[in-house]
Amino acid sequence: MSRTVKDLEEAGVIALFANGPSSPLPAEFSLWLGNGDDAAVFSNTPGSASVITTDSLIEGQHYSLSFGSPEGVGHRLAHVNLSDLASMGAKPGFALLSVALRADTPEAELRGIAKGFHGQLKAHGVSLIGGNTTKTEGPNMLTAVFLGAVPPHGFLRRDRSRIGDLIFVSGTLGDALGGLQRLLAGKREASDDPAYASLYQAQLRPEAEVALGIKLRESGLLHAMTDVSDGLATDLRNLLAPEGLGAIINEAALPISEALQMHAKATVQAVSTLALFGGEEYGLLFTAPEANQAAIEALGRACGRPLTAIGQVCSEGFFVLDPKGDRQPLLTGFQHYSKTL
Amino acid sequence: MSRTVKDLEEAGVIALFANGPSSPLPAEFSLWLGNGDDAAVFSNTPGSASVITTDSLIEGQHYSLSFGSPEGVGHRLAHVNLSDLASMGAKPGFALLSVALRADTPEAELRGIAKGFHGQLKAHGVSLIGGNTTKTEGPNMLTAVFLGAVPPHGFLRRDRSRIGDLIFVSGTLGDALGGLQRLLAGKREASDDPAYASLYQAQLRPEAEVALGIKLRESGLLHAMTDVSDGLATDLRNLLAPEGLGAIINEAALPISEALQMHAKATVQAVSTLALFGGEEYGLLFTAPEANQAAIEALGRACGRPLTAIGQVCSEGFFVLDPKGDRQPLLTGFQHYSKTL
Repeated sequence: MSRTVKDLEEAGVIALFANGPSSPLPAEFSLWLGNGDDAAVFSNTPGSASVITTDSLIEGQHYSLSFGSPEGVGHRLAHVNLSDLASMGAKPGFALLSVALRADTPEAELRGIAKGFHGQLKAHGVSLIGGNTTKTEGPNMLTAVFLGAVPPHGFLRRDRSRIGDLIFVSGTLGDALGGLQRLLAGKREASDDPAYASLYQAQLRPEAEVALGIKLRESGLLHAMTDVSDGLATDLRNLLAPEGLGAIINEAALPISEALQMHAKATVQAVSTLALFGGEEYGLLFTAPEANQAAIEALGRACGRPLTAIGQVCSEGFFVLDPKGDRQPLLTGFQHYSKTL
Repeated sequence: MSRTVKDLEEAGVIALFANGPSSPLPAEFSLWLGNGDDAAVFSNTPGSASVITTDSLIEGQHYSLSFGSPEGVGHRLAHVNLSDLASMGAKPGFALLSVALRADTPEAELRGIAKGFHGQLKAHGVSLIGGNTTKTEGPNMLTAVFLGAVPPHGFLRRDRSRIGDLIFVSGTLGDALGGLQRLLAGKREASDDPAYASLYQAQLRPEAEVALGIKLRESGLLHAMTDVSDGLATDLRNLLAPEGLGAIINEAALPISEALQMHAKATVQAVSTLALFGGEEYGLLFTAPEANQAAIEALGRACGRPLTAIGQVCSEGFFVLDPKGDRQPLLTGFQHYSKTL
């Protein structure tokens, strides 16, 4: 019998997650006390503010081990949180990890999750400074908290867009949903046509735009920023509707990968639907004055990440210009609770 | 039909938890951006460091609504986290809340939990600055993150005890376990003999020693501190064993409430067993030089919280002096994973 959480006991589970690789601290933070006490103690250097965010993955809800590896789950847990820091233009610094685990969870699965998580912490210079383990009789649940740093007045909020601003996205849209659809159709990364590799990558090992987010903040070219976590149609509303603003999206301008074009064609779907409603993308979505378009595109090229103007902020309502130039209402994406339950 | 999470949808659940009472910020922190963006942004004033901790409550595992009210669950969620800040001598400042909820969770239950949680945030001057909601098909799970402030060099760690130090606890021991035993035996707070009220209070609405923790840190009288969350026998080991130290506990000195004495007698149990192994207490456990005993006891009286010397740090092993003066080995408390699964 291979070992499970029950054999590891609490101390074993904590050791497995807490003993990751150490990272040099970002200059913005000092760490006074890390793992192993009742709480962690850190401070900011003067001129720096802390950014804090938390996000959870629940087995069967946000990940399935029949779709990808435990390493991918750990990778994903890091990036769903890193993406919120990226949206503020923050430099990552610290993480906390809370795990609720069934007693029969295999040790090998935990080691995989820890490996994937630790690998991404190391890649982004993040130190794990705390957390907590509990047992559950429900699905396993992983919750991380990430702390980053920004200049106190220099971070990118959601609520600073203006009418007439251009709307930009980084990378391509809809790839993660394309990957999910292939997985749900019974295909697997290892055996599928390599032409679809980027769709599996986007679904199973999304990469938050950490470096790009920092560059965009530093550029001073933007008005507001968020990430595409619930799908463009929903995130656009989250960005603009609270300010009483709307958007007109140009369907023809949506950046679509060749892999997604192929996938949409093979499955007889409108690729724009995938791009508008696909969630779990973790690209950046931001607004900026029209006059900054050339500078923003140049910044994207310099970072090796395409930045595409896909529409414009308007005074009210959410619309898509279809290929004929007709204005169609932009429907919302899924609602977490009502749609899938 | 009364409304559930399914009817509220994600935005309704977020609004219910996010829209709590606002608190004036502690002078140690500035809040630049709270709820509603991708992440929250705050900074410390110079001369202050941040303390961060996280703890979770799972329904059926850490709480049962057949034992107490939803308000009590929210209260408890705040205090299990506040207790970790208290152990560092930290002043609470901010909280984040992540909830994983079944779709059929009644709205009234959520409102109760939110009310209990918000009430304790307000009582301790804590601002809720972020969080996250997910659905689950398993038991409901509530995870909070609390941030506090300490002077960068003045916080109370676990790892500074010395041989010969006296060991102190705040308040009385074993009450929460007494309350749990009565609940498990089918008794309920509202209908039981009022003489046991303090046992129910300790189990259902524990109070972290926030003010006392700060006073103890400021006094400079202590060497090391933690809280009694897993039971004295276990927490004592967590405090001393990593330093290669041990302890001799004087059974006759253990502070026991009259209610627990009554409960132990009525249920034919050794009251010292309840005091040594009862978890979920959230009193403080600390070590200090013997020379500081009178000053520490005076500080406790000034704060209205009894502080009792219960033993002494020794070089190796964990022992109890029984009433005859014989040294008995102190067994460990429960292990989270192995005992109950």
